[in-house]
Amino acid sequence: MTSTQTLTGSSIIAGETVAGDAGTLRAIDPATGETLEPAYSLLAPAEVERATRAAAEAAPAYAALSPARRAAFLRTVADRVEALGETLVARAVAESGLPVGRLTGELGRTTGQLRLMATVVEQGDHLQARIDPALPDRTPLPRPDLRQVHVPLGPVAVFGASNFPLAFSTAGGDTAAALAAGCPVVVKAHNAHPGAAELVGRAVTEAVAEHGLPAGVFSLLYGGGNEIGQALVSDPRITAVGFTGSRGGGLALVAAAAARPVPIPVYAEMSSINPVLVMPGGLSDPAALAAGYVGSLTLGAGQFCTNPGLLLLPTGPDGDAFLAAAGELVGAATGQTMLTPGIAEAYRTGAQALAAAGAEPVAEGTPGSGPHAPAPAVYATTTADLAARPELQAEVFGALGLVVRYSSTDELLTAVGDLEGQLTATVHAGAGDTEALAPVLPLLATKVGRVLFGGWPTGVEVSHAMVHGGPFPATSDGRSTSVGTLAVHRFQRPVCFQDAPDEVLPPSLQRANPWGLSRRVDGVVRRPEEQ
Amino acid sequence: MTSTQTLTGSSIIAGETVAGDAGTLRAIDPATGETLEPAYSLLAPAEVERATRAAAEAAPAYAALSPARRAAFLRTVADRVEALGETLVARAVAESGLPVGRLTGELGRTTGQLRLMATVVEQGDHLQARIDPALPDRTPLPRPDLRQVHVPLGPVAVFGASNFPLAFSTAGGDTAAALAAGCPVVVKAHNAHPGAAELVGRAVTEAVAEHGLPAGVFSLLYGGGNEIGQALVSDPRITAVGFTGSRGGGLALVAAAAARPVPIPVYAEMSSINPVLVMPGGLSDPAALAAGYVGSLTLGAGQFCTNPGLLLLPTGPDGDAFLAAAGELVGAATGQTMLTPGIAEAYRTGAQALAAAGAEPVAEGTPGSGPHAPAPAVYATTTADLAARPELQAEVFGALGLVVRYSSTDELLTAVGDLEGQLTATVHAGAGDTEALAPVLPLLATKVGRVLFGGWPTGVEVSHAMVHGGPFPATSDGRSTSVGTLAVHRFQRPVCFQDAPDEVLPPSLQRANPWGLSRRVDGVVRRPEEQ
Repeated sequence: MTSTQTLTGSSIIAGETVAGDAGTLRAIDPATGETLEPAYSLLAPAEVERATRAAAEAAPAYAALSPARRAAFLRTVADRVEALGETLVARAVAESGLPVGRLTGELGRTTGQLRLMATVVEQGDHLQARIDPALPDRTPLPRPDLRQVHVPLGPVAVFGASNFPLAFSTAGGDTAAALAAGCPVVVKAHNAHPGAAELVGRAVTEAVAEHGLPAGVFSLLYGGGNEIGQALVSDPRITAVGFTGSRGGGLALVAAAAARPVPIPVYAEMSSINPVLVMPGGLSDPAALAAGYVGSLTLGAGQFCTNPGLLLLPTGPDGDAFLAAAGELVGAATGQTMLTPGIAEAYRTGAQALAAAGAEPVAEGTPGSGPHAPAPAVYATTTADLAARPELQAEVFGALGLVVRYSSTDELLTAVGDLEGQLTATVHAGAGDTEALAPVLPLLATKVGRVLFGGWPTGVEVSHAMVHGGPFPATSDGRSTSVGTLAVHRFQRPVCFQDAPDEVLPPSLQRANPWGLSRRVDGVVRRPEEQ
Repeated sequence: MTSTQTLTGSSIIAGETVAGDAGTLRAIDPATGETLEPAYSLLAPAEVERATRAAAEAAPAYAALSPARRAAFLRTVADRVEALGETLVARAVAESGLPVGRLTGELGRTTGQLRLMATVVEQGDHLQARIDPALPDRTPLPRPDLRQVHVPLGPVAVFGASNFPLAFSTAGGDTAAALAAGCPVVVKAHNAHPGAAELVGRAVTEAVAEHGLPAGVFSLLYGGGNEIGQALVSDPRITAVGFTGSRGGGLALVAAAAARPVPIPVYAEMSSINPVLVMPGGLSDPAALAAGYVGSLTLGAGQFCTNPGLLLLPTGPDGDAFLAAAGELVGAATGQTMLTPGIAEAYRTGAQALAAAGAEPVAEGTPGSGPHAPAPAVYATTTADLAARPELQAEVFGALGLVVRYSSTDELLTAVGDLEGQLTATVHAGAGDTEALAPVLPLLATKVGRVLFGGWPTGVEVSHAMVHGGPFPATSDGRSTSVGTLAVHRFQRPVCFQDAPDEVLPPSLQRANPWGLSRRVDGVVRRPEEQ
């Protein structure tokens, strides 16, 4: 094993391996219930400050890096994470219970989004440079020279997510976006996958060193309970927070950030049941549609943020046929190991709560082997019950679907209007549905970050046009996305320089345009050769 | 007088004149202390819902307007406000105590920013359309067709500001930005200028009717105390808030927005002392610099958000000469009528608090005629005292300057490091200051929204590159600006359409590009003729 592949069980603070003295934890293999070595020593909340101080010290130099150098650094991070290969995948499999194929794909996605962010940084459009040249002869008053650019906020706290040990964790989407924006990152490792976190964290640390960057650009902290997260979000040097997890966890961070003497933005992705609207015309082949639905519902034990937890289905024979087919498939399905014992337990509790709220069981599969692989299930209810009982909208994280039967466009409209904010909504429609959809679609678009026509919401493309976000409570800030290149804007703010001499301007705004940026001049975007 | 020039003393809810039954108020002419007719009837907080319901009903149709139609509407608003001309200026003068010239300029600025926003809407870059075309043959998985656009958030609550009865009030910057983004607006009129608010509000209402828009696109509410504002921000149909005013008022709205079942963004511009850094090389002509300083400090009775409340000045003879000259000018200056009796009283209290905190009086001018025209003043202190006593950083709204003497770059750096977030900072430097400025400028840029080199911060250009915002507590959300065309982004969020047929896509994303937008295709901005 190379140096990156020996686990130390310690935090990494600005390049240094730091053991904590606030207890230890070991990962658990959810497939077997066995604990995994090594023991991870936990930092006390007061030790957070060492990482945030280093991040704050590193911030100006890292913010000032040229696009080429920052992009090269991001690519090295990608290369080093990629080089961990099977070692990383194997550890993540052991810690998460997710299959090798899924984690191999997730590793590719993680390195892919780092490399995509490198292209964004190189292009420099995300700096949004704007120039309003001086108008010294304007009357009654001359106009000064005004130059605007977006600058990094400063050190960002990132919380690893249990359901994506790679793509939404240590060097995942939030880290990639923050590093691309020019912000140092302090990661709080998720305690479900400390080993995967350490492997990736050391790869990032090595990339920081290889590029001669200040060590404080990256730290990875292990801690127990919620205290260390609260300490991190409350630290005065932290300027923004990225989080993917439960609604309770996200809201606690939002509250901590708002209670600071200087409040900061929190981008928390929290919960979504990703409604699927099946229109009458979408039921031309109920069995095929049911197969797609159950495939998406049970994918990865249903542990995707975009899992289709709620499906709106017409009453009548076609809808009955769909539900029967879906029930048959779910009934024949076997539970897969969930990420942690706690998550598996929460799934069982959530299913009971749904039944207690009056949802009718349609079908239940078979629990999988191992202690934490509960059975997938489908329940059904009516739009009237959905309206009357908000608890039917509670996310049950896992392979559990609630099918809501509607008998008119009015009922459908009411049900859509009652929905909370969501990451996605999916529409299955046919040619005859145009009239019925006309009032539904505008309403639906106010509720979600992404609308799919056909297909299923699981499987989130990492690209320029993706939105993985949405109105509260899907996220704490619907003006943003956590996936895709737009995410870089989360960690920026605009600054204007007025009548600044060239030598104090950042290169992005200098008259000679040394970075070759497209810039908005007097309101019109001009390419470098047009300036 | 035309119909727009007869004041009714009533709120305007979705085109209707609505009298309230929760008491009345009359404006006060601060120059004379006299009350002005008519009496304005105040709405009870429960009546807010009538306006927000109408706004929510109007939202989809207004959001769907073509760029051409929305721009035409904004231009009509500008035309109708402009047509109020001297009637509006005279009423605003009477209600604010500001001079005719100042308000004539402010009227031009108000209509100018509406027209500038119209050009932004027409161009359509603010929609930030992004297209990642389908890659059906990609392996291992095809890529779906992904199309992203920014959509309006929904109804926006705007709070009029006392110090800009036109440009930051009824049809001011936040209203222009929200209407440009496609959001209906509910304005809470500032009680200091109810007549100016009504004149402008009726002009907007007439423009709404002239363009055949749903009447709920605009409402203007009068209410007493803080309850109506709290009710407006807490209303579930409101999706964002724009506010310019005191720190206490802004923080109360932020708290109300955060306490909602569905929290919403608040853009509150709150307080700033706009530090001026005089470097040793900036003192080549102390008397001229002092004249510029005192001119900016006393402009409009010091009632600008960008008033230079704090000036960092070297110790030594050049600094002494500057302070002596500034003291002489302030000592010779006469107080101008402030906006309201309460604001004049707060100025006097603030000056006393500054003296109580140990600031030394340098010079005080003469109170002006009339009851609410306190004397301008300059105080001095040291960097050590500034560090030890945070209350010396408290904004005293009005023509009051605190000069902080520093004797080394280290002292300057420490003082800059101790500053809270600010709207602006201004640097006066000379050729010999390059080395000393090197560590100061990056630190300064982390504190402010705009850095000026030479000149004075009062006088905010309305343009594409302007930033009128800054880190907390200058604003509640430093990721934004309230002035300039970037402000349109405050009231938008991204939505992605996946595999959507053309007929359900908004025109901004349709394949034929009917609005002729520049769109980011596969990460690269392409002009209409290049798509």
